[in-house]
Amino acid sequence: MDSLPKDLFNPLDTENFVDESSRVLEFIADYYKNVENYPVRSQVKAGEMLCTGLNVVGFNWISSPAATELEAIVMDWMGKMLKLPQSFLFSGGGGGVLHSSTCEAIVCTLAAARDMALNELGADKITKLVVYGSDQTHFTLQKASKLVGINPNNFRAIKTSTLTGFALAPDDVRATMEADLASGLVPLFLCATIGTTALGAVDSLEEIGQVAKDYKLWFHVDAAYAGSACICPEFRLYLNGIELVDSISMNPHKWFLTNMDCCCLWVKNPSTLVDSLSTSPEILRNKATESKKVVDYKDWQIALSRRFRALKLWLVIRRFGVANLMEHIRSDIKLAKKFEGLVVEDERFEVVVPRKFALVCFRLKPRRSEEDGSKLNWKLLEEVNSSGKAFMIHAVVDGTFLIRCAIGGTFTEERHIDGLWKLIQENAADLLLFKNGCNIED
Amino acid sequence: MDSLPKDLFNPLDTENFVDESSRVLEFIADYYKNVENYPVRSQVKAGEMLCTGLNVVGFNWISSPAATELEAIVMDWMGKMLKLPQSFLFSGGGGGVLHSSTCEAIVCTLAAARDMALNELGADKITKLVVYGSDQTHFTLQKASKLVGINPNNFRAIKTSTLTGFALAPDDVRATMEADLASGLVPLFLCATIGTTALGAVDSLEEIGQVAKDYKLWFHVDAAYAGSACICPEFRLYLNGIELVDSISMNPHKWFLTNMDCCCLWVKNPSTLVDSLSTSPEILRNKATESKKVVDYKDWQIALSRRFRALKLWLVIRRFGVANLMEHIRSDIKLAKKFEGLVVEDERFEVVVPRKFALVCFRLKPRRSEEDGSKLNWKLLEEVNSSGKAFMIHAVVDGTFLIRCAIGGTFTEERHIDGLWKLIQENAADLLLFKNGCNIED
Repeated sequence: MDSLPKDLFNPLDTENFVDESSRVLEFIADYYKNVENYPVRSQVKAGEMLCTGLNVVGFNWISSPAATELEAIVMDWMGKMLKLPQSFLFSGGGGGVLHSSTCEAIVCTLAAARDMALNELGADKITKLVVYGSDQTHFTLQKASKLVGINPNNFRAIKTSTLTGFALAPDDVRATMEADLASGLVPLFLCATIGTTALGAVDSLEEIGQVAKDYKLWFHVDAAYAGSACICPEFRLYLNGIELVDSISMNPHKWFLTNMDCCCLWVKNPSTLVDSLSTSPEILRNKATESKKVVDYKDWQIALSRRFRALKLWLVIRRFGVANLMEHIRSDIKLAKKFEGLVVEDERFEVVVPRKFALVCFRLKPRRSEEDGSKLNWKLLEEVNSSGKAFMIHAVVDGTFLIRCAIGGTFTEERHIDGLWKLIQENAADLLLFKNGCNIED
Repeated sequence: MDSLPKDLFNPLDTENFVDESSRVLEFIADYYKNVENYPVRSQVKAGEMLCTGLNVVGFNWISSPAATELEAIVMDWMGKMLKLPQSFLFSGGGGGVLHSSTCEAIVCTLAAARDMALNELGADKITKLVVYGSDQTHFTLQKASKLVGINPNNFRAIKTSTLTGFALAPDDVRATMEADLASGLVPLFLCATIGTTALGAVDSLEEIGQVAKDYKLWFHVDAAYAGSACICPEFRLYLNGIELVDSISMNPHKWFLTNMDCCCLWVKNPSTLVDSLSTSPEILRNKATESKKVVDYKDWQIALSRRFRALKLWLVIRRFGVANLMEHIRSDIKLAKKFEGLVVEDERFEVVVPRKFALVCFRLKPRRSEEDGSKLNWKLLEEVNSSGKAFMIHAVVDGTFLIRCAIGGTFTEERHIDGLWKLIQENAADLLLFKNGCNIED
């Protein structure tokens, strides 16, 4: 790690890691050695190793007050780092919960929206409910929508294009909803994305939020990937319009130095979640719950039992601090910019979609105008991945095959970017030589 | 731990724990120190710490072949330990997956059953589907049923009683289904339980399975708690009739020395799960998946990404071995038997439901025949729990308030049982004295 430039962020020193982790181990061992001396009903307040080593089972407040309180605190912290409106924080009547995945977050908010609608319309109307996203929305929305019983025919993936940078066009959303209303269907749930998976595109919360407001449907924002970047003032603009949103999720396990699994979900109106997901069997009855002064996270999620994920996120925030976390994001984006620059400099290549975060979508330009270059770029990607030195994934957008270079590995440095680009260039040169020699069909 | 009797199983030596875990730490640190020397596309084959430390993200086979293959192997191992029919094993055309919770397992199997039915009946018939369990079935069935869009009015919690030891009575199940059919509804899904949460009751798979067969519905078995015991030949009888079952789940994190979260689900016909839950966006396309020779676990579960849970279970099985795992189960049951004996010996108390596993349901007998003893037992439980020395949970069955003593803590020894019983007796004596003196109303 000696070679690490000062302006790049180093999140993990492997020597320190062993030292510190050993102290955690001693703590866990001491805990079990002396377990008899601790009262059963209270809870230690203590990292992932800690989270796992202590095996805390936090379904309701009474079973693990510390885990519950810490989660609420950490969710408010994260919310403040993102400058979410007060209405999403516990301190403002909203609240946040840690889920295992975006899919869980969307399943739970969809169920809440569905049940709120069916309470009004009657249970039989479930077959009329419609869910909206774009053709760039993560497929988890479609999966979650099917999972909660929305008719698969009532899922709309609204088409996007280069015109909007692959973001949802408000007029298209309105037109789709009008058509559904005209055929007797009921718009239920609309999902916008901050940083789509394939291209890193951003839907405008201000514009789409206004549509959601006009049609009175539940507006969810999936900020799984790029939500982390919004802690930096220069990226906070992507959350403009957040006050029009009912729920927002982001995944610290993607780009916030947190291990799998950890997905933050904030909702403005937690009672909608609880109404849909709560269960109050006799076996879980207790004074704390009945006082209604506590949060029972089992009613905010799919499962009853839950892991002590808050500890992971708490440690990440406490250890690095907001300033370092911003540096981590900026460091990755700096590397992506560097890679983007290398692509632009080489006229055989092109950047296909403008870069916003740490994802560069590029391709080898087709050699002749009548070719689309898909086969050529597929071959290039296959060669690079087969080398075992890098792994990139492709995307197909508007029929164009492109290669995605995503910076986000914890240890990526400038020399890795240089090495990757050299590898790509070498393979491209070989391919182009071979292609020209053999005149292979593209 | 010196005082541990030879015939009780000791699963964790805290000194060894630190030694061994330190070696795991060194391994993880070395992995990251030398991460550049490893090829990107292959995967290390390596416990929870390992599972977490390596942060493996196993959505599909190609992203983590080792995690996928290990999970398939471990699930076949567990299946063989339980002597499941060949049809539940990968080697026999079925297969198993590790979920985070019983709720996830039931959500996924319910969705599979629902979509199989709706493919035949049409999507609009979702409002007609009915789900069946008993009044002792874990409430997760009701939650999952609502979650996947079953009309909340179409959930049946069939009443049980002391007559069947709180197991489902086949005739009652048939009568309930007949009534639903008569009113135009469609029986979809029936859940039986091996070891209910409140009382440890067992539904007969042979009897209930025959009903499921006659009415052609999906038959799921929730063996979350007592499934672990079925690895012992003397408890395997509770799985008789398993060949009539479509899916079965059990939680190693409950009674199999495995940390949260870890729930095994086996299905006879994995394609029903995949048909309901699969997603094949361009970004995840790869040769391995298209060959159809590999398992993509993302299509067997709710989320896309997944933790490397197989490593935990693999370590538990490899470290302890089947014989020791049986000893662990028998050791807990022996302690529960001891506690049961202490209750029976004291004529002020009674065992309310016959004990099958390591759960003893007991209460202080009411003092006068016109009393039901609920207040008295509630007070006793509150006193014991307030001491901080033990924590037990109550249940209310047929209007009777009872106290549940569940043995299963990793470090429970005979002296703890003696101590607990002494604590209960002392508090009971105080209560009875006070009650007699003051003649408080029960």
